[in-house]
Amino acid sequence: MDLSSLVDSIRSFEGITRKNLIKDVTGLLEETYNISGRTLLGFGDDASALEIGNGQVVLLAADGMWGKLMEADPWWAGYCSVLVNVNDIAAMGGMPIGMTNVLSTQDKDICRQIMDGINEGVKKFGVPMVGGHVHPDAPYNSLDVSITGIMNREDIITSCGARPGDKVLVAIDLDGAIHPQFHLNWDTTTMKSADLVQAQITAMNEIAKKHLLTAGKDISNPGTLGTLGMLLETSNMGAIVELELIPRSNDVNWEDWLKLYPGSGFVLTAREENVQRIIEILENVNITTMVVGSIISDQKLYLTSGNDKEIVFDFCTDKITGIHDENP
Amino acid sequence: MDLSSLVDSIRSFEGITRKNLIKDVTGLLEETYNISGRTLLGFGDDASALEIGNGQVVLLAADGMWGKLMEADPWWAGYCSVLVNVNDIAAMGGMPIGMTNVLSTQDKDICRQIMDGINEGVKKFGVPMVGGHVHPDAPYNSLDVSITGIMNREDIITSCGARPGDKVLVAIDLDGAIHPQFHLNWDTTTMKSADLVQAQITAMNEIAKKHLLTAGKDISNPGTLGTLGMLLETSNMGAIVELELIPRSNDVNWEDWLKLYPGSGFVLTAREENVQRIIEILENVNITTMVVGSIISDQKLYLTSGNDKEIVFDFCTDKITGIHDENP
Repeated sequence: MDLSSLVDSIRSFEGITRKNLIKDVTGLLEETYNISGRTLLGFGDDASALEIGNGQVVLLAADGMWGKLMEADPWWAGYCSVLVNVNDIAAMGGMPIGMTNVLSTQDKDICRQIMDGINEGVKKFGVPMVGGHVHPDAPYNSLDVSITGIMNREDIITSCGARPGDKVLVAIDLDGAIHPQFHLNWDTTTMKSADLVQAQITAMNEIAKKHLLTAGKDISNPGTLGTLGMLLETSNMGAIVELELIPRSNDVNWEDWLKLYPGSGFVLTAREENVQRIIEILENVNITTMVVGSIISDQKLYLTSGNDKEIVFDFCTDKITGIHDENP
Repeated sequence: MDLSSLVDSIRSFEGITRKNLIKDVTGLLEETYNISGRTLLGFGDDASALEIGNGQVVLLAADGMWGKLMEADPWWAGYCSVLVNVNDIAAMGGMPIGMTNVLSTQDKDICRQIMDGINEGVKKFGVPMVGGHVHPDAPYNSLDVSITGIMNREDIITSCGARPGDKVLVAIDLDGAIHPQFHLNWDTTTMKSADLVQAQITAMNEIAKKHLLTAGKDISNPGTLGTLGMLLETSNMGAIVELELIPRSNDVNWEDWLKLYPGSGFVLTAREENVQRIIEILENVNITTMVVGSIISDQKLYLTSGNDKEIVFDFCTDKITGIHDENP
């Protein structure tokens, strides 16, 4: 596949295009999102941060599982509901402390499979599911999970801090396997020890405490370039990224690799002098980390490969979520 | 309606019977619910409490909106998603600080009505909706909301502390109206000022800080006696309650009144010497509060009316949620 076709495929990828509606919803909440004066960040980050005094903030995030995942593999949906939420807190540099869920199903067998998957996720990531709500009479199967984390206010990693000249890093655990039914799920945790998986979360907390990043985001459904696009959009920035520098497993082709949801993967930006320490901390927990490009003030994401260069997103005309930081 | 028929109607009430499945789900999580050592309470409370140091805990709760509510009045479903979550935190004596939501709908008009309802709830209760997740392609409409609160560890109001001889109090704001489409929704907040509504939440926080209660729970879908039943079940206790002492609006008959979900209503237990101070604090914010009976060690809920006496629940044979405190 040539670069132009690859870029076309990414631009039309459902994992990215379905983010288009976010602004329609968050726009309706802008009037009240800081009604109590505790809300530190605008929308556009993996989690929200609320001040609780003592220099601490509480982080809040929530995720709903895709219906397709629920239908094909309820255990995996339950497990992933933990993984995606924990990664939202890790991406902010926080420590996850507990989750709640709302589960809708009439089928006791599906219910048990989902709960078994959640239990396995809880054991793997060390974050308890402490409560929730059951709809035993819903005419559909769904699972929504929310998570709460804590951290120091001054250490928060946001999506909005990338600045021209910063290096762009892609960090992905390459030791994994494609889920047998979902070719865009790169599982890197079910086969690993809880200690290593939790060390990967703690590594982001260490990087946060050392203030080594200017921005960061966990790679989720929009894939590596879609997630970078969301970070650039929120930061009001652009970037030039060299395709072949992105860490990749040789088992997966570029088109799938750039769209998949890795078990442990982050897009990060940092000043050049901090890059080496970031790489050391992440490589130490089995997350392969590479400098793939640089932030530019021109609000476009360029992808290069050899002598070819394509625009993936032009934020003057394209929108992923439509959320921009208001204090660039 | 005679007392026996009233009790039969309550016992078969869907708002109570659909709680039966909770234990099936929480039972699957018991193995891991305290995996991090932060979890202070078992299941069975309105919210979970997680230690964060400094003598503080974070409270977590989540609620899914009934499908019927979503279909008939999306605005009301959005508004109630805030109300029910805030009441879960208030029932623990905590201060709510933020919410997240997962919204599934393909219909932009329904989406807007739900978000308008949420926005109105946010303004009324002063708690922001700070993030969440949108499923723009789900083949159903659903809204799940989670909330996080904070409080001091030593002040937590639980469901498991009722002891023989404690007085049972029912506290309900009687100044309200039945929702035009839902005869079991007793709306007491839409027509009141945000100041008064927020003062009702703060009143429970004041009662918590003064350690005036032995147990407490917010009256929700199971209604007044169903909620009391859940509190008794968790506390491994029984009670004798005099029907006519329960505060009631004259606009609503007993059968409906005992099943309805009040905008601001709590079932509380306290030692006799604290009763007067509790009543003063709640009456001061327009919540009518009455001593309606006493806690007994016999694990049954008796309802009396004049010379009649009926057993509403016998916890030796009946189960509502099936959750019991393990350290009675």
